[in-house]
Amino acid sequence: MGEFDFIRQYLQRQQSGAEVVLGIGDDAAIVRPLPGLDWCISTDMLLAGRHFFADEAAADIAHKVLAVNLSDMAAMGAQPRWALLSAALPQLNPVWLSSFCDSLFSLAAAHGVTLIGGDTTRGDYVFNITIGGTVPQGQGLRRSGAQVGDDIWLSGRVGLAAAALQQRLGRLRLPETVFAECNQALLRPTPQVALGQALLGVASAALDVSDGVAQDLQHILRASGVGADVDTTQLPTLAALRHGLPESTLLPLLLAGGDDYELLFTAAPAQRAAVAAAGIASGTALSRIGTITEQRQVLHCLDADGHPIKLDQQGYDHFG
Amino acid sequence: MGEFDFIRQYLQRQQSGAEVVLGIGDDAAIVRPLPGLDWCISTDMLLAGRHFFADEAAADIAHKVLAVNLSDMAAMGAQPRWALLSAALPQLNPVWLSSFCDSLFSLAAAHGVTLIGGDTTRGDYVFNITIGGTVPQGQGLRRSGAQVGDDIWLSGRVGLAAAALQQRLGRLRLPETVFAECNQALLRPTPQVALGQALLGVASAALDVSDGVAQDLQHILRASGVGADVDTTQLPTLAALRHGLPESTLLPLLLAGGDDYELLFTAAPAQRAAVAAAGIASGTALSRIGTITEQRQVLHCLDADGHPIKLDQQGYDHFG
Repeated sequence: MGEFDFIRQYLQRQQSGAEVVLGIGDDAAIVRPLPGLDWCISTDMLLAGRHFFADEAAADIAHKVLAVNLSDMAAMGAQPRWALLSAALPQLNPVWLSSFCDSLFSLAAAHGVTLIGGDTTRGDYVFNITIGGTVPQGQGLRRSGAQVGDDIWLSGRVGLAAAALQQRLGRLRLPETVFAECNQALLRPTPQVALGQALLGVASAALDVSDGVAQDLQHILRASGVGADVDTTQLPTLAALRHGLPESTLLPLLLAGGDDYELLFTAAPAQRAAVAAAGIASGTALSRIGTITEQRQVLHCLDADGHPIKLDQQGYDHFG
Repeated sequence: MGEFDFIRQYLQRQQSGAEVVLGIGDDAAIVRPLPGLDWCISTDMLLAGRHFFADEAAADIAHKVLAVNLSDMAAMGAQPRWALLSAALPQLNPVWLSSFCDSLFSLAAAHGVTLIGGDTTRGDYVFNITIGGTVPQGQGLRRSGAQVGDDIWLSGRVGLAAAALQQRLGRLRLPETVFAECNQALLRPTPQVALGQALLGVASAALDVSDGVAQDLQHILRASGVGADVDTTQLPTLAALRHGLPESTLLPLLLAGGDDYELLFTAAPAQRAAVAAAGIASGTALSRIGTITEQRQVLHCLDADGHPIKLDQQGYDHFG
């Protein structure tokens, strides 16, 4: 099987998407703007050995590479629309490709995303997806809108993916069922797309947690010119982690673990009912974890006694 | 230097682009549609050791990864607007990064392209650019419009990049000045952006030649349901290659070499004056190399006597 057979057999599927005038198969796709909407556009690259284990199941890799991109759309409050996939593959193995593509198109269809283009080449596993979505004009959720006194909110649970990674690296020993749940969070993150859209007009700033709560929150603080106090006892996680791990193991997982793909956002206290409604509408648990302060770029993570915690590692830096 | 310092110091430059509402630094960029225009969107990934030598100069790599993407915009007749860069780098070397970024932003500025986002990670050199551009609504140049009787045209010269690659792989020995010119074509391809836009409403089908004239022309034949006769004596190349190489060496370079990034397009004979005007307006030499025939997907490459040539290798296939 050659490159062009692969494209025709596996990638040129019938897909919907009223805005897609021309999909896979030309020099570029053609997408027609939708009236009154802005485009949000983002890209994420995943490499074997860095973002996933090289022997991970094809379906899990495909899910994750699209999910982390969908998570960026969620963080903008955008409706995902289309995606392009670049893939370097060591060979074209039909079993592997079927599994990869079925998983990719399944998650894409669940979010109304049309695969409109891409590039394939021979090489060690590298996957890059660029994704585009829409928000009502001028309403995209940015990192720069947090105001002093705003509540800080976090969706779902954090620390699970990091716990699974630590176990797979031999640095942690969780009970089997706990590891299984954490590993599922690592392999199959759920992008909070519905929640993001429900937060339009409600959240003052938002991002998705990919590098760890502490480091990602710092991005909001920098962009908004504010500070934050975070109550670490309110950080949502698996009960088995919260109660089964010593604090010195638990807190780095929760604050600096990364790979969570939950939404971290701020909203005025007057919006608490609206935030709760957004959580219910999207079927997502939401935790109020802290408050925006006026101390520019100063993040205090407080323990049960209200004392600041010193974190050795702030979060994931690809070149740190 | 960490990942975020790199982004701030090297990538968050002041750029123009009226349609870019929000650039680098959030979860996604925000781009506002322009009235009456369609978006053309394309992506290309380049890997060390496959698309470029790992020790190539940073400025040359940066030029090429953007140029090949600009070439896809040219092939659609699109005005390039924005790009996203994903890069895997073994380390953050300030000298290397300065050179890479200066070259990238220089070519981007020359074409009015704003870098709106990207992703960086540690790994062997991999670069992926996704590019977006605009065409007047419904006018993008596709591969599917070639009609029986249309002329087949080729811009610039082909075979130079392939000749340089063959020499660098030790399979060819060109005079030094000839190699230097060919190597420049390999390292610094010139995307035919102005020509592409000048061909809107003139060309019936178009693409850019990246995998070799013969293979890329087959894409037009397949998409348009037609055939083609190509007069190989009319294939434009460097005189020193045409006259210095035996035909058995020359023709594979011209027909199946790849990495040319010239525009291959079809147009009705009634459009010859308009085609010539498009060449003059864009400062590009154009050669009429053949005719579209009604034999579906049958490509005849004819020698000086009008006899069909048999090519062993049709062109570049990443998994062939």
